[in-house]
Amino acid sequence: MPKAVFYYFKMKGLGEPCRLLLAYGGVDFEDIRFERHGQEWEEFKPKTPFGQVPVLEMDGKTYAQSYSIARFLGRKFGLGGDNIQEEFEIDQIVDLIDDLRKRAASVDYEPEPDLKEKRHAIYAKTVYPDLLQRINDIIVKNNGYVALGKLTWGDFVLAGLIDYLKKMLRMPDLEKQYPAFKQVIDKVFAFPKVKAYADAAPEALF
Amino acid sequence: MPKAVFYYFKMKGLGEPCRLLLAYGGVDFEDIRFERHGQEWEEFKPKTPFGQVPVLEMDGKTYAQSYSIARFLGRKFGLGGDNIQEEFEIDQIVDLIDDLRKRAASVDYEPEPDLKEKRHAIYAKTVYPDLLQRINDIIVKNNGYVALGKLTWGDFVLAGLIDYLKKMLRMPDLEKQYPAFKQVIDKVFAFPKVKAYADAAPEALF
Repeated sequence: MPKAVFYYFKMKGLGEPCRLLLAYGGVDFEDIRFERHGQEWEEFKPKTPFGQVPVLEMDGKTYAQSYSIARFLGRKFGLGGDNIQEEFEIDQIVDLIDDLRKRAASVDYEPEPDLKEKRHAIYAKTVYPDLLQRINDIIVKNNGYVALGKLTWGDFVLAGLIDYLKKMLRMPDLEKQYPAFKQVIDKVFAFPKVKAYADAAPEALF
Repeated sequence: MPKAVFYYFKMKGLGEPCRLLLAYGGVDFEDIRFERHGQEWEEFKPKTPFGQVPVLEMDGKTYAQSYSIARFLGRKFGLGGDNIQEEFEIDQIVDLIDDLRKRAASVDYEPEPDLKEKRHAIYAKTVYPDLLQRINDIIVKNNGYVALGKLTWGDFVLAGLIDYLKKMLRMPDLEKQYPAFKQVIDKVFAFPKVKAYADAAPEALF
């Protein structure tokens, strides 16, 4: 069987949760990183299932959509729930984390500079604190995990997205205000295989 | 055990896939529909898990996040996959459908009228046709279903969202251009319990 290949851009972004999960699962994968507007990506794009990355090729199959891949890898490596109720509880928090990401991305990717600043100012007051506090409280209630009071693939989603979130939210010190986030991140990066991947990965700020 | 209760706004929107699944599963549920900016919603909001609807109360538990609820109900009613690979294949298509919804919503909810029209014109040329064609092709390949060549909860997502999508995409005749969509919708509404729910539901255009 050929080696697994993971395709995404030269950033952490929506690809990093999957990369962390692949590392956790001990999958020896080729970590292809495209320039966002580069020729290589344009050439690869038509070969992807949906014209998007991330894409994972593994065991002769092709996987698309970041959260779907993360859920699949998580369940494969024993990081899912024990029944559909538990799996729901992970999904629900991952969707909440993605609500935060989506709102922040809608501002961060806004092409009109004035509008971008205006919306950032509004969201930083009205949207982000509420979502961040909710997620922080959920982690506290779950003993330092995002769901079920134990390690799940949801923790890898948060740990993988954290630098991207901090950049888009413009909160380099996010964990100072919301310290529970750090508990999740520390737990994920404490796994030797995850740490080894992160230490060896190409530099990417977010 | 008290009757199940489903809370959402006076619209189909992101609530309808769950309502259709509840109907399919034969769940006798109270169908609470709030005015979007009304007093009742403001009073209920702090009682929700995340300050959002949809929310489902069922069997003494509370469920939030539309796709997470739909996945849970789908699996509960035998509309999931037979293994994690199959479940991934449903998730992946649901995420693609949600990509279309998100892009359309980002325009439809744009408060600045000029920008809204400008973006709609761009997306209607560059974004929507590509995503619609991809989804149409996937349905064709799956014998009139969104995934696995058989009925899954993913079909209920598409059937539930279709009027909302058509409104946001400004395509009342979407199925004329993308006829495979109609196959999925017809299959879902052919179930007597789903049809009975839809016939009796309060009128909502999208």
